[in-house]
Amino acid sequence: MLQILSQHADVWGDIRLIASPRSAGRKLTVRGEEVEVLGLSEEALEGADVALFLVPEEVAAQWAPIAAAKGTVVVDASAAFRADPDVPLVVPEINRHCVRVRPRGIVACPGDTTLALIVAVGALHAEFGLSELVVSAYQAASGAGRGGVGALRGQLSLVAGTELGTCPGDVRRAVGDDTGPFPAPLALNVVPWSGSLQEGGWSSEELRVRGETRKVLDLPELRVAATCVRVPVVSAHSVSVHARFEREVTVARAHEILATSPGVVLYDDPASGDFPTPADVVGTDPTWVGRVRRSLDDDRALELFVCGDNLRKGAALNAAQIAETVAAEFTA
Amino acid sequence: MLQILSQHADVWGDIRLIASPRSAGRKLTVRGEEVEVLGLSEEALEGADVALFLVPEEVAAQWAPIAAAKGTVVVDASAAFRADPDVPLVVPEINRHCVRVRPRGIVACPGDTTLALIVAVGALHAEFGLSELVVSAYQAASGAGRGGVGALRGQLSLVAGTELGTCPGDVRRAVGDDTGPFPAPLALNVVPWSGSLQEGGWSSEELRVRGETRKVLDLPELRVAATCVRVPVVSAHSVSVHARFEREVTVARAHEILATSPGVVLYDDPASGDFPTPADVVGTDPTWVGRVRRSLDDDRALELFVCGDNLRKGAALNAAQIAETVAAEFTA
Repeated sequence: MLQILSQHADVWGDIRLIASPRSAGRKLTVRGEEVEVLGLSEEALEGADVALFLVPEEVAAQWAPIAAAKGTVVVDASAAFRADPDVPLVVPEINRHCVRVRPRGIVACPGDTTLALIVAVGALHAEFGLSELVVSAYQAASGAGRGGVGALRGQLSLVAGTELGTCPGDVRRAVGDDTGPFPAPLALNVVPWSGSLQEGGWSSEELRVRGETRKVLDLPELRVAATCVRVPVVSAHSVSVHARFEREVTVARAHEILATSPGVVLYDDPASGDFPTPADVVGTDPTWVGRVRRSLDDDRALELFVCGDNLRKGAALNAAQIAETVAAEFTA
Repeated sequence: MLQILSQHADVWGDIRLIASPRSAGRKLTVRGEEVEVLGLSEEALEGADVALFLVPEEVAAQWAPIAAAKGTVVVDASAAFRADPDVPLVVPEINRHCVRVRPRGIVACPGDTTLALIVAVGALHAEFGLSELVVSAYQAASGAGRGGVGALRGQLSLVAGTELGTCPGDVRRAVGDDTGPFPAPLALNVVPWSGSLQEGGWSSEELRVRGETRKVLDLPELRVAATCVRVPVVSAHSVSVHARFEREVTVARAHEILATSPGVVLYDDPASGDFPTPADVVGTDPTWVGRVRRSLDDDRALELFVCGDNLRKGAALNAAQIAETVAAEFTA
């Protein structure tokens, strides 16, 4: 976030950095200046026009209403308020106007898996009218935080240079019981689980993709079936998307739309080896889209493969975009 | 294959091992006995009742008709004859009876990605009537042969113990231009491509999943949309399956069917961490199924996550099962 704030056009006056009390006094650099970190308290929030919350869900649930009660507009990247009907859920490329209607003084950001696909899917929806989504995610380790990246790197060191991966459980035995934030080893493996168990066997992450996509696109009845699978990639989520529309689609028109939509890079020429992969996309801002195909059995359905950096557009970047939109109200 | 033939009930008389001429004279062990490898020739095939072909597509295309012309029943694991209307495409758990009608004297095996999902999906089809499949595959490196496994292992050695995977192209630069049989680095990455480019942007692998599934299930009009993505796993393919049926489904009934279907292991209790992963499934025979959910928006649709060893059920095992079925004709 500090990197993004430093790179974007500077719409801010003072920037305060606030963290947990044990980080208070640390110095961090933003916009080329050293700033001392304040411990989270009511006083630290006093007088702020906009507060960007990049904190765990339970911290946001407690502190966002406190900040909002002081007249501060809170932009929250956590899941705490995403489903709240009085909190707009915003992806600026799609529904920037929703920022202005915020009965609780809070604006929420979708989660990283939704953000990996929604800019591309939203652009196609505007033209063709979305009626159904079936998505399978290839989620990077950093979606589970620093602990996820550390676990993946540690496990890779244990399996690299070995002949593991050919006998049942050999990777599990090499990695041991401590699989970090993942319920099974991630090195040389894929793990079809992320989040907590919800009714009907769904994971919380899968239900969020459904709920967030419906809310951002303002399609409360949209059919969405999501499967979230963790893969041994450090950063950048990928999603295989089957999207069905109300109107007939063509690959040529989908290409035109994607090539001209803000926040999207069309990278789709398999003959030249051009399709997005996490290793090429990580560290960049846009949603990359490739493998655009029309279903052979349904002229209203498209397949896409999308990739986006889950730490940039998937979190900090989207929150910064929302905050910049809000900031414009104060300077206008 | 030699391991499988040695482990299964011995329905064979003589077993000849035939390979390319440069392997002639090598000794291999099958059923506990050393057998000398013969070079491929018309004479080597002479007098065989059944010939199991585990060879590249072009070798099968040339030699299967030669063997069949001698009265030998050819069981071919390659893609050479899968789409031929005069060649049955057989998965014994589903359509064993089709083995008997073989106008060309050849019986074909589906590819490894189809075989990862078809036993489970076929069992559900028998009960509910399949109408549509949307599948996203998580394909292991060994699907691209030994070169694929070697490339993955080599790449993992280059990235393990590093901080790579956070900047655009850093993995690509570390791995270099030689990415083996894959069109991009596979370590710390996923690659949404396997096979050759076909019309409409589809890969050959994706079209095969569609064509083979339709043929095995005898549903020539089935709607199938497949996306094939390579993941950094040594062996065992996984598939995220969205299956829509003609009749209403329940998770309870799907569980009953899957728990009692031959060749399937139901492993579905996320509360206990039970769902299939390639690392647990590799080296085993069955199709493992977990994450069974009914769509929240469609009471005729199920989501499943299936895993199967692409070198066992995905290739040698299915071919051996077909060959054993054929052999029973000769001993009956």
